[in-house]
Amino acid sequence: MRMPSQVTVVDVGPRDGLQNEQANITTAQKVTFVNLLSEAGVPVIEAGAFVSPKWVPQMADTAEVLMDIDRRPDTRYPALVPNLRGFQRALATGVRDIAVLAAASETFSRRNINQSIDESLATIKEVCDRAATLDVRVRGYLSTGFGCPYEGDVDSSRVGALTKALLDLGVYEVAISDTIGVAHPGQVWKVLDAVSSHAPLSKVALHFHDTRGTALANVLAGLQAGVTTFDASCGGLGGCPYAPGAAGNLATEDLVYMLHGLDIGTGIDLDKLLAASTFASNRINHPLPSRFFQASRASRR
Amino acid sequence: MRMPSQVTVVDVGPRDGLQNEQANITTAQKVTFVNLLSEAGVPVIEAGAFVSPKWVPQMADTAEVLMDIDRRPDTRYPALVPNLRGFQRALATGVRDIAVLAAASETFSRRNINQSIDESLATIKEVCDRAATLDVRVRGYLSTGFGCPYEGDVDSSRVGALTKALLDLGVYEVAISDTIGVAHPGQVWKVLDAVSSHAPLSKVALHFHDTRGTALANVLAGLQAGVTTFDASCGGLGGCPYAPGAAGNLATEDLVYMLHGLDIGTGIDLDKLLAASTFASNRINHPLPSRFFQASRASRR
Repeated sequence: MRMPSQVTVVDVGPRDGLQNEQANITTAQKVTFVNLLSEAGVPVIEAGAFVSPKWVPQMADTAEVLMDIDRRPDTRYPALVPNLRGFQRALATGVRDIAVLAAASETFSRRNINQSIDESLATIKEVCDRAATLDVRVRGYLSTGFGCPYEGDVDSSRVGALTKALLDLGVYEVAISDTIGVAHPGQVWKVLDAVSSHAPLSKVALHFHDTRGTALANVLAGLQAGVTTFDASCGGLGGCPYAPGAAGNLATEDLVYMLHGLDIGTGIDLDKLLAASTFASNRINHPLPSRFFQASRASRR
Repeated sequence: MRMPSQVTVVDVGPRDGLQNEQANITTAQKVTFVNLLSEAGVPVIEAGAFVSPKWVPQMADTAEVLMDIDRRPDTRYPALVPNLRGFQRALATGVRDIAVLAAASETFSRRNINQSIDESLATIKEVCDRAATLDVRVRGYLSTGFGCPYEGDVDSSRVGALTKALLDLGVYEVAISDTIGVAHPGQVWKVLDAVSSHAPLSKVALHFHDTRGTALANVLAGLQAGVTTFDASCGGLGGCPYAPGAAGNLATEDLVYMLHGLDIGTGIDLDKLLAASTFASNRINHPLPSRFFQASRASRR
């Protein structure tokens, strides 16, 4: 079975995770959390978002977080920016990595970011053009790549075309995202097959949610198709905004456990990663969904 | 990707699941639970165990359960029997399907069933010989096929040799079991590769626990290797006796959701299966671990 020897894990816990948690996490705690992740060897940590604090109060202190963390030279700390204004705020913190967001479903795009897909691409173009002049790296998300909470099925060839559109605008990779956690391995192969006729899979990351338990099986399918970058959230932080109480982001521990079992290197120390999840676990008001975290905690009792 | 068009799902919830639950479930509730599973189209339902009520009080009423359920003609209802004495008790209920248990780790065998592996094979031989004269079908379990809570790693070729030994004794299939939920897809391929030089994979079932989140990825690996029978427990009932609080058996809903997504038939109606998990969920004292169940419950709120 063809498998890569190395995979890049992107931990989105401090942004995609914490953004969807109700608990009040202080700036100092966020800083500690990001530092624990970088000490564990996570190579890419999505550290925050420069979005409106009115809509996403959990990310209001992203500038402080980015300025206070201990930056490791080989670690990248992208922050989500919705537009040029957010990018300006990010630049004030000396950011070298940002992330932008588009959706594969028109209804989701309008309801989530209040723009049509075309409008969002125009916004992303402004950000990418500016970023290019400043040598800032831009990561792209493509939400609802495997299904939309409003429209249901999403056309795979549209996912391919939008992946290419984002790469053409200058993002270095597109994280095709299963926003509502419905994907299964057959669909992963189908979507990646469609995407590969538009863009090289070396520029594709996969962002799975474990809402129906399929996230790791989907990662296995993605690995077999040739993808080598996967998003996950420390401890499975974040839940599912479309099914409150259900699991959301794939847990980084579960991902790393499987990858290491497959003899795939990640550079991540699983014990140190558990220190980060334990820290996060003690600051939220529900059990972390990560199966590996629960098992390791249970065996310590 | 080579995939079977049809898979046999064995629901072990009423035995392996309930045996590890603390809640007090009445005989009538067990009967309803088994009936709900058969109404959902589950083809094989492990309905109970004829073990000592001193050691496993939860299974003390298996005879009553087996006599009270509505038997559907195409559904099989194996009951676990540890020895000839248990088999005698089972026969009194008119049982047509039984299951026997061996382990791939010597220490686990001695601690779990108080017999060496060789002694347990001799016990199983007595049961199989008797079953053959009565036309009773015998299913075999091979515990600790992917790791032992006492010995750690388990040799794959031993798993292969013991699978063959069980088949030679007359069991119609061997469910190689990840008793402590440590397996990952690379190990699944390795074990199945070793097993296939001893026995045909058409006579192998896989019994995964989701303790570290890898169960469905392991199923995908097993499907790719040619296995077509998978065990699971409705709702993920049962937990992990070796890590209390952690997830145990793979949840049947999660398995069926993935299989149907892969266009693999199971004969199971997922909505009706959720009726069985909802029934079970209301009778235990903790949330069911099934991700699919949690998501479906959350979206109904």
